[in-house]
Amino acid sequence: MNIQDEKFAEFEKLSNEEKVKYFQRNGHLFDMIISQQLNRQVIDDLFKITNQVRTIAKSKTGSIFLQGLLRHKRAMLYFTQPSSRTFLSFENACHILGMRTSEIRDSRVSSEIKGESFDDSLRTFSSYTDLIIMRHHEPNRAERAAWLLNSYSDRAVPVINGGSGADQHPTQAILDIYTLLRSFEYQGGLEHKTILMCGDLKRGRTVRSLSYLMKNFEGVKVIYAAPPEFQMRSDVIEFLERHKIPCTIEDKNLLNVLPKADAIYMTRIQDEHDKVSGESGKTDISNFKIGKEDMNKVKPNAIILHPFPRRDEIDVAVDSDPRAMYWHQERNGMWARAGLIAYIFNVHGEIMDY
Amino acid sequence: MNIQDEKFAEFEKLSNEEKVKYFQRNGHLFDMIISQQLNRQVIDDLFKITNQVRTIAKSKTGSIFLQGLLRHKRAMLYFTQPSSRTFLSFENACHILGMRTSEIRDSRVSSEIKGESFDDSLRTFSSYTDLIIMRHHEPNRAERAAWLLNSYSDRAVPVINGGSGADQHPTQAILDIYTLLRSFEYQGGLEHKTILMCGDLKRGRTVRSLSYLMKNFEGVKVIYAAPPEFQMRSDVIEFLERHKIPCTIEDKNLLNVLPKADAIYMTRIQDEHDKVSGESGKTDISNFKIGKEDMNKVKPNAIILHPFPRRDEIDVAVDSDPRAMYWHQERNGMWARAGLIAYIFNVHGEIMDY
Amino acid sequence: MNIQDEKFAEFEKLSNEEKVKYFQRNGHLFDMIISQQLNRQVIDDLFKITNQVRTIAKSKTGSIFLQGLLRHKRAMLYFTQPSSRTFLSFENACHILGMRTSEIRDSRVSSEIKGESFDDSLRTFSSYTDLIIMRHHEPNRAERAAWLLNSYSDRAVPVINGGSGADQHPTQAILDIYTLLRSFEYQGGLEHKTILMCGDLKRGRTVRSLSYLMKNFEGVKVIYAAPPEFQMRSDVIEFLERHKIPCTIEDKNLLNVLPKADAIYMTRIQDEHDKVSGESGKTDISNFKIGKEDMNKVKPNAIILHPFPRRDEIDVAVDSDPRAMYWHQERNGMWARAGLIAYIFNVHGEIMDY
Repeated sequence: MNIQDEKFAEFEKLSNEEKVKYFQRNGHLFDMIISQQLNRQVIDDLFKITNQVRTIAKSKTGSIFLQGLLRHKRAMLYFTQPSSRTFLSFENACHILGMRTSEIRDSRVSSEIKGESFDDSLRTFSSYTDLIIMRHHEPNRAERAAWLLNSYSDRAVPVINGGSGADQHPTQAILDIYTLLRSFEYQGGLEHKTILMCGDLKRGRTVRSLSYLMKNFEGVKVIYAAPPEFQMRSDVIEFLERHKIPCTIEDKNLLNVLPKADAIYMTRIQDEHDKVSGESGKTDISNFKIGKEDMNKVKPNAIILHPFPRRDEIDVAVDSDPRAMYWHQERNGMWARAGLIAYIFNVHGEIMDY
Repeated sequence: MNIQDEKFAEFEKLSNEEKVKYFQRNGHLFDMIISQQLNRQVIDDLFKITNQVRTIAKSKTGSIFLQGLLRHKRAMLYFTQPSSRTFLSFENACHILGMRTSEIRDSRVSSEIKGESFDDSLRTFSSYTDLIIMRHHEPNRAERAAWLLNSYSDRAVPVINGGSGADQHPTQAILDIYTLLRSFEYQGGLEHKTILMCGDLKRGRTVRSLSYLMKNFEGVKVIYAAPPEFQMRSDVIEFLERHKIPCTIEDKNLLNVLPKADAIYMTRIQDEHDKVSGESGKTDISNFKIGKEDMNKVKPNAIILHPFPRRDEIDVAVDSDPRAMYWHQERNGMWARAGLIAYIFNVHGEIMDY
Repeated sequence: MNIQDEKFAEFEKLSNEEKVKYFQRNGHLFDMIISQQLNRQVIDDLFKITNQVRTIAKSKTGSIFLQGLLRHKRAMLYFTQPSSRTFLSFENACHILGMRTSEIRDSRVSSEIKGESFDDSLRTFSSYTDLIIMRHHEPNRAERAAWLLNSYSDRAVPVINGGSGADQHPTQAILDIYTLLRSFEYQGGLEHKTILMCGDLKRGRTVRSLSYLMKNFEGVKVIYAAPPEFQMRSDVIEFLERHKIPCTIEDKNLLNVLPKADAIYMTRIQDEHDKVSGESGKTDISNFKIGKEDMNKVKPNAIILHPFPRRDEIDVAVDSDPRAMYWHQERNGMWARAGLIAYIFNVHGEIMDY
């Protein structure tokens, strides 16, 4: 343990609420590290900015305006885990705003193989660029990066967490909530809707984040559909109870609850987190999938979401159904990330005034 | 087989002529997938546009004009096979036109390793970018990609085939024909010229494509020089007969036919397609190479081409001969691809008016 | 040996002074290959240009001006060895000047695996781009590249050596000397200062280059601190003697000489160059490190440098000391490389006039 390890151990003991302040500057979002930073105000701001960005981008003139906003800034994408969706949506979000990008996607090409510490690598990235977007296979690495750079005031560039270990993936939460808000914009908002989550609820970080965010919306009901082996863990259930969010557990068959949902959030089995290889394959998940024929049980105005990649939880024959919102959701990821970056760099005023 | 596999199987049964229509929009080239799309009109259009692009690019002002044409567009380069030439020429062609680029050149960094289907990966790329340029180790993958995206009207972005399996590599055909047309521009055109192709004619996709394209030019004669083991396959020979293109087979020694040719297209042995490893090495190819001393047998106005990479088919001492056109041909690849992209995005009018 | 190998063997026999001329155009720096090119005039020019680039870049307007200088140019980064610092600082230097970049950082994705020669690969890069920046694991590769392209007048694009084998790394020398000059700008310049170098002096290319450059500055004294196993080789010692640069050898303990130094240049053990694996680990280097408590022995105006990556030669607790200049030095690498590229492309006049 060097002196930085000791100081960071102190920081890690802070509550999430105290950490949230640490990731701000002058009361404004600076780093995007944990989904606890997403209070109702931030969610609503990002929703408006993102809507405006996508509207402006429809024309060539608008696109060029957007590219002018951050054309003097450079971003670093540091991804030590395989990713195409998160990586590409971030990179294109940067390009939409005119940023130039550098990348390390393969740790074999970096100086870490010469024995450089994580801290030194991150300070190096911050020496050359104005924003670090990172995904790391170890937990709390994005938190460490943001904490580290904030402790050096001369090169404190913002850090955005693109997934850190099995825990936090806040920009996925942003795009999920954005898609829900946009889908229900002319149906009275997300308030009083029933959100059904299905799949590997135990290990999926997206369903956990989404569950936490529900406290921001009055009258929301939650249904968890999964075999007992994959059901939502007790910490989230207790969180919902504490915030008086009604919650139903369905562990026999998705079809039993499908007709009740306004939004159906499907997820794949996260078998890369199996403790024993092949463990997940022993559980029967055949009752927790959606086929074309199941769509007649779904409400006519409901929406189907999926964070991707998918396997066979949703048959591709469902893709052509207008309620299948997951491809729009995926594209929303790019817009929502562009909105977030604009917000962090304080150019959202120019966007809203356009 | 899911529903998409079934539909695609139907599509694959279509003739090339019917497929050609499918890769158009309003009668204009949209995807560039198979070399059958290269009719005389398209060839001539691309020739003029490409010439104009390279002229404009000579000045800084012109370069900046070109960069303005597609600066609001973003391209995806998806290459699952090693490539430096095709990759770099496409990437720089995009940059010439002002596009931003994203890339996946190593499948280990993508979501396919998490079990994502090819179709879902491609739709993902189309969610974030405006053009997909791809090379794939499996046959028909570019065709599948174009077909897939065209079936979803909301995100049908054009697909350009940068090489798919051992079959099609249409942009190589474009740059080859461009180089021939440009070289013979002040020698009466490609009509009535004798084109000699030498090397691995059996498995080389470039010589096959080039042979098919010869039907567009009146009076062309073809010579195939290769050991019997590497001679051109009968399907192409029959094609030439059908189109009344005279064709000579030389299987002893390149020098026997070298003096007759106006264009000499050399190729390397494609041993990566050996069924038994090392198989190609058993054939004596020493009579099918060009050394410095052989150049006095070549016509004074003839040109030597090679699609690269080369091994020792052409001695480097030949490079300094003015008839060695292969380095120009390589650079033409970038200009021709820029011309193609401009054509697909319908900005060639602005280019021609400059 | 082909004809090019033979010609290059002739070239390699030239003295460094003769080579320096070969890397010029009209008396001006064209390629940056060997540190012998860095005479006092070039060092002073680069210092002024670099200072001006970083001043201009402070504002958005200035950044946009800089991006306009080379926005019509494209650079290729070809790195066959792991590198994050050199790679990223070069890439961002290109972006600062508005260049677009292409990269090959993994030889498995390039055509060399299909048997292409180094020469052909390099000519390919020069076909598509306007500048080649390269790091190679073999010695003299950058020299070969520059020599090769200069021999083809039609596509002679400049080559910058980002590290070639264990020998030359001239842009590291540029950024080191830039940092020294900048640090002593208001302390009477680098003249008459005492430069202490510590660590793996035997195999470190940075300390060797830096030693050579000292001949440009009057009255400089040099101290080498390292265990006997890692002491500076006799060729450099003799060079210093020839140029009458006083030199002290310390092989017991860094602390014996620490109080005498105006600049302390620390380096790590280069164990990737061990002939027998683990060889370096047998030497006790514990007396050649700097901890927080050692800083009270360092002069109040002295500076600590390190080319990075570091291991434990400098305790991270030293980072917060104002004399720790190594993070500034790292960032200077980007500015100095931007200055160099501007100089090579002859746009430094516009920069100085801004």
